Amino acid sequence: MAISSIVLIGAGNVGFHLGQAIHGQLGIISQLYSRSISNAALLGDRLNLPYVNRISDIHPNADLYILAIKDDAIESVAKALMEQIQEEALVVHTSGVTPSTVLAPYFKNYGVFYPLQTFSKDKEIDFSTIPICIDANQISHQSDLKALAQTLSPHSYIIDDAQRAILHVAAVFANNFTNHLFRIAEELLAKNDMTLELLKPLILETASKVQSLPPAEAQTGPAIRGDQKSILRHLDLLASDPELQNLYLSLSKRINPDLKL
Amino acid sequence: MAISSIVLIGAGNVGFHLGQAIHGQLGIISQLYSRSISNAALLGDRLNLPYVNRISDIHPNADLYILAIKDDAIESVAKALMEQIQEEALVVHTSGVTPSTVLAPYFKNYGVFYPLQTFSKDKEIDFSTIPICIDANQISHQSDLKALAQTLSPHSYIIDDAQRAILHVAAVFANNFTNHLFRIAEELLAKNDMTLELLKPLILETASKVQSLPPAEAQTGPAIRGDQKSILRHLDLLASDPELQNLYLSLSKRINPDLKL
Repeated sequence: MAISSIVLIGAGNVGFHLGQAIHGQLGIISQLYSRSISNAALLGDRLNLPYVNRISDIHPNADLYILAIKDDAIESVAKALMEQIQEEALVVHTSGVTPSTVLAPYFKNYGVFYPLQTFSKDKEIDFSTIPICIDANQISHQSDLKALAQTLSPHSYIIDDAQRAILHVAAVFANNFTNHLFRIAEELLAKNDMTLELLKPLILETASKVQSLPPAEAQTGPAIRGDQKSILRHLDLLASDPELQNLYLSLSKRINPDLKL
Repeated sequence: MAISSIVLIGAGNVGFHLGQAIHGQLGIISQLYSRSISNAALLGDRLNLPYVNRISDIHPNADLYILAIKDDAIESVAKALMEQIQEEALVVHTSGVTPSTVLAPYFKNYGVFYPLQTFSKDKEIDFSTIPICIDANQISHQSDLKALAQTLSPHSYIIDDAQRAILHVAAVFANNFTNHLFRIAEELLAKNDMTLELLKPLILETASKVQSLPPAEAQTGPAIRGDQKSILRHLDLLASDPELQNLYLSLSKRINPDLKL
């Protein structure tokens, strides 16, 4: 099967951008569903597509149904959708967290189409830079999804459920925890009459560096240099927050296990 | 005093870029010194400036001497330079770590001129994006250095020694520790047949987001959502590395102290 008609289910942040990218490239989305009629209208009008907000109004004959909806809604929508569509249809979700197998009780053909980026409606996104992680319970559908992904981005990967779970933990470190370190920096600065403005170019450069250099080679700072004098001075400056001292210490020791601290 | 002649001492990564920026804007560097004659020649030829590698050959009559040298060389070079130059000269170092007061025993007028970015010779840098942190023991020299900084970048700040020490800790969190989190992510991926390519766009977006949004508002992920199910699943995936589990847990609890973990 080549995919020639798609129903997009969900018009939140992911659906909004994914819908535009697919329809812009291929023009093969035939219908849009959102529980919220205002979200459905916003995207439907933009793409000039019919939209509905009742599952019973969804076209039954599409090749592919993309569930771009919240994790905790996937199962209930899948259950309702099963009643509505052809048995041969391929159904994928776009989640980084939910196993593909939650779809198994409802569909013969299922998979994942997960664009790995954070999306917000008010920020344009160049889809061609985004890694797309796909999977399907049938090899032939893996190829179909891969072909679809490749029309959007040269960066597509077949990633199974076990890998995707690891990918999500890794993203927590690289994105969520990193952002929290920025917050720690900002709070340290604010307490001393400075602002994060001072570090913003350095933050960009840090992220930019690992685009071409492995993090192990890009590592700088007192820990990797074995500069214990600076480390002790820093621990002293953090004395009012023992938890933060511990965090500083455990990250420093991970960077350089030879430190005597 | 307005600064009309500068001797640049050091032609390493900082000296290389700072020298080009100042001389390009103002043309007032009169001489270059480096302990390494090959480094001196590289930059001296590029800027068409006289260069020396003996402190006794340094011009004695410049208004400003900039020590762009390693932290552990500052004191010894300062001591030797003191014998060579006029008493009224202003001497600054470019370090984020060393207090300005290490220069106090040697010079009547001293300070700091610290461009806050990581530099490497093979990467062009747009100096106009770089925050420049300045300080001086005399108010009038603060103004002189501020005027000099403003010719290079609109982002100049008067930052005293105590603030600069905090700034350095904050930079360790925002840059060094962040880079280590990228490494952790890379290792998790590698163990499961994936590469950091998958996360590079997300890493760039994370750094890009906090350029315009405070980190507290940019925070996403299981911890801030209170998604304990995902957190427990992640801890389970990290079970082979208890130290990494602890790091995951302490960062998650800092992000959301209400988590029951």
